[in-house]
Amino acid sequence: PSELWRQKARAHLDTLTKPLGSLGRLEDLAAQIVAIREEKFSEPISKGVYVFAADHGITAEGVSAYPREVTHQMVLNFLAQGAAVNVLARLHHAELRVVDVGVDTDFNDIPGLLHRKVARGSRNMLHETAMTGEQLAQALAVGAEIAANAVAAGQTMIAIGEMGIGNTTSASAITCALTGSAASEATGRGTGLNPEAHARKVSVVQAVVAKHFGGSAANASPLEVLRCVGGLEIAAMAGMVLAAAQHKLVIVIDGFISTAAAAIAVALSPNTQGYLIAGHQSEEPGHRLLLQYLNLVPVLSLHMRLGEGTGAVLAMPILESAVALYTQMATFTSAGVSGAA
Amino acid sequence: PSELWRQKARAHLDTLTKPLGSLGRLEDLAAQIVAIREEKFSEPISKGVYVFAADHGITAEGVSAYPREVTHQMVLNFLAQGAAVNVLARLHHAELRVVDVGVDTDFNDIPGLLHRKVARGSRNMLHETAMTGEQLAQALAVGAEIAANAVAAGQTMIAIGEMGIGNTTSASAITCALTGSAASEATGRGTGLNPEAHARKVSVVQAVVAKHFGGSAANASPLEVLRCVGGLEIAAMAGMVLAAAQHKLVIVIDGFISTAAAAIAVALSPNTQGYLIAGHQSEEPGHRLLLQYLNLVPVLSLHMRLGEGTGAVLAMPILESAVALYTQMATFTSAGVSGAA
Repeated sequence: PSELWRQKARAHLDTLTKPLGSLGRLEDLAAQIVAIREEKFSEPISKGVYVFAADHGITAEGVSAYPREVTHQMVLNFLAQGAAVNVLARLHHAELRVVDVGVDTDFNDIPGLLHRKVARGSRNMLHETAMTGEQLAQALAVGAEIAANAVAAGQTMIAIGEMGIGNTTSASAITCALTGSAASEATGRGTGLNPEAHARKVSVVQAVVAKHFGGSAANASPLEVLRCVGGLEIAAMAGMVLAAAQHKLVIVIDGFISTAAAAIAVALSPNTQGYLIAGHQSEEPGHRLLLQYLNLVPVLSLHMRLGEGTGAVLAMPILESAVALYTQMATFTSAGVSGAA
Repeated sequence: PSELWRQKARAHLDTLTKPLGSLGRLEDLAAQIVAIREEKFSEPISKGVYVFAADHGITAEGVSAYPREVTHQMVLNFLAQGAAVNVLARLHHAELRVVDVGVDTDFNDIPGLLHRKVARGSRNMLHETAMTGEQLAQALAVGAEIAANAVAAGQTMIAIGEMGIGNTTSASAITCALTGSAASEATGRGTGLNPEAHARKVSVVQAVVAKHFGGSAANASPLEVLRCVGGLEIAAMAGMVLAAAQHKLVIVIDGFISTAAAAIAVALSPNTQGYLIAGHQSEEPGHRLLLQYLNLVPVLSLHMRLGEGTGAVLAMPILESAVALYTQMATFTSAGVSGAA
C-alpha cells in the first residue's frame, strides 16, 4: 500500500466534523483502504466472498467432531443458499462464489460451483506430505486465477473463506511451523471436540509437525510448510491472497484457516500484509497466535468459530462505513463548525 | 423480554447448519431480539436513529475542548447531512431524526428538526440543579412521545444518540451517583481535553456530586440524579428508552452519554435492561463502568468516542445479520447435512 496515500488520508480525516481521532479504528481502516486503492479509493465498493472447499486426509485420525462427508454436504448447502455465509453475503450484497479445489466427491457439472478440483482431498499428513509439489502449484494457481476474475468483475474488496472438515488441524500445524508455537497452544476444539478428542488432536498435530519439520520448523520455507501440512483449499486461498494484493484489492480474511493461508502468503511476500484486514477474532486459540504473527488487529470479536468467510463478510459493513465516512462527511470549514480551543 | 421466546430461539439456533454455538454472540443477539419481538420477530427490521441535542450550563466551568456554540452548529450539520451519523444512517438505511430538546439558540421553524425545546440549555449544576422538576418531566415526555411516533412509523429497532457540548460531564456525574465510582474513575477526556483541563473537569465532577449528593449518592433516587446532574437531552433519551421498552422495540444504545440515560431508565425500571443492546465500547472510561452496572457486553469495540449515535448505528448491520441468520439459515434436516459424532 502507498504510504503517501495513507498520509493524505490521515490529513483529510483530521478536517472532518468530529473531534480528532474520535472515529478510532474506523480512521485506521479508512486510511488503510485509501492506501490500498490509491486514486481509486472513491470508486464504489464492490464486494466478493470466496469459499474454497476441500477434504483432508488427516480426518482418518479422528481429528474432527463431524464426519468427512460434511464438506460435500455443506458445498451443496452453499449452492442451495442455506448456509450462514449465504445469508450474510445476501444481506450485505457480497457476490458469493464457491470453489471446489479438492472435495472428495464427484460433483459432475453441478451448476453454481467453480469446478477447480485438484485432487479428491489432500493426503494424510501424519504419514506423507499433504500435497505433491504439482498439486500445490495447481491449487496456488486456482487462487491466482480467481483473484484475476474478481478484478475483471470489478470487485474491490474480497472476503476469503473456506469449508473443509479437518482443516483446523492443518491450520494448527501451519501455526506451529510459522510461529514456533507448541501444538498444545495452537490446537483448539475445532467444530466442537470433547476434551478427550481434543487431546488426541493435539498429539496428532504434534506428531505431524515433528514428522515434517523435526525440531527445526524455523528452517522450513513457507511453500514447504504449505505442501507438507497444508490443504488444497488453504493453498488456493494463499494463492488468491498473493494475487489479490498484487491487484490492489482490499482483502478481508476470516478465521483461523483463512488466516493461516494469509500467513503463508505474507511469509512468501511480506508486502502482502498491508492489503489484509482481519475481519474478526475467532475462538480458535491458534487464530490469536497467527494474528500476532501477522501484526493484525481484528475488526470484530464476537466469539464466532464457524469459518465459511462469515467473520469476514460480517466485517464488510464496518469497512464500508469507514470509507463512507471518509468520503461523505463535511469538513469543519464546509459546515461552519468551530474547532477545538 | 420473554424467556419463553428466548428458549424457543435457543432451540431453533441449535438446528441450523453450523456447529453448536459457533455463531457466538450473534446467537445471543438473535435470541435476545426474538425475546423482545416475540411473534413479530420475523417481520422486517425497520430502523430509526434519534439524536437528541441540548446545551449544558456546566460549560461555564471550562469542561469541554469545544465551545458551546458547537452544539448549535452540529445540529445544522446534521440537517445538512454532513455529520458522521448522517453518513452511517444513510449507508445502513436507518431513518435519522434530530430532536432539539434544549439547544441554546433559536432555530425558528427550520425544517427537518423536531422542535421540542424545553429550555435553552440546562443550568450550571455546580451551583444549582441542572433542571427544574417541570423541565425534567417535559424532557422525559419528549422522549416518550418520540418513542410512540417510532412505533407508529413501524420502526422495530432504534439507536439512541446525542449532541451536547459539556454532556460527558453530566454523564460522569450520573455514573458517580449510580455506581458509587470516584470522579477520577468516571471522568474522561471528552472530545479531547489536555491533561490540565482534564484535571479541572475531574474536580468539577467531584464538586457537582458532593454538592447534590454529599457523601451518600446511594440514597438519591434515579429521577433526582437526573434532575440534579443530568441534561435535557439525557432526560429525553431516558424517557425514550423507558417508553421504547414498553413498546417492545430493540433499543441500541451508543456511547457514554446514551448509556448514562439508559442507566437512569434501568434504575427506574429494571425490566428495561433486557431491551437494551450496547452498540459499542467507547473510549470514555466511565462508559465501561456504566456497561458493568447495566451488565451489558458491547457488540463493537473500535475505540470510538464521537457520540451522535454513531456506535449504535454501526452495530445495526451486525444485529440485522444475527436476525437474518436466525430466520434464513437451513437446518441440518432440511439441508441433509450430517450432525456431529
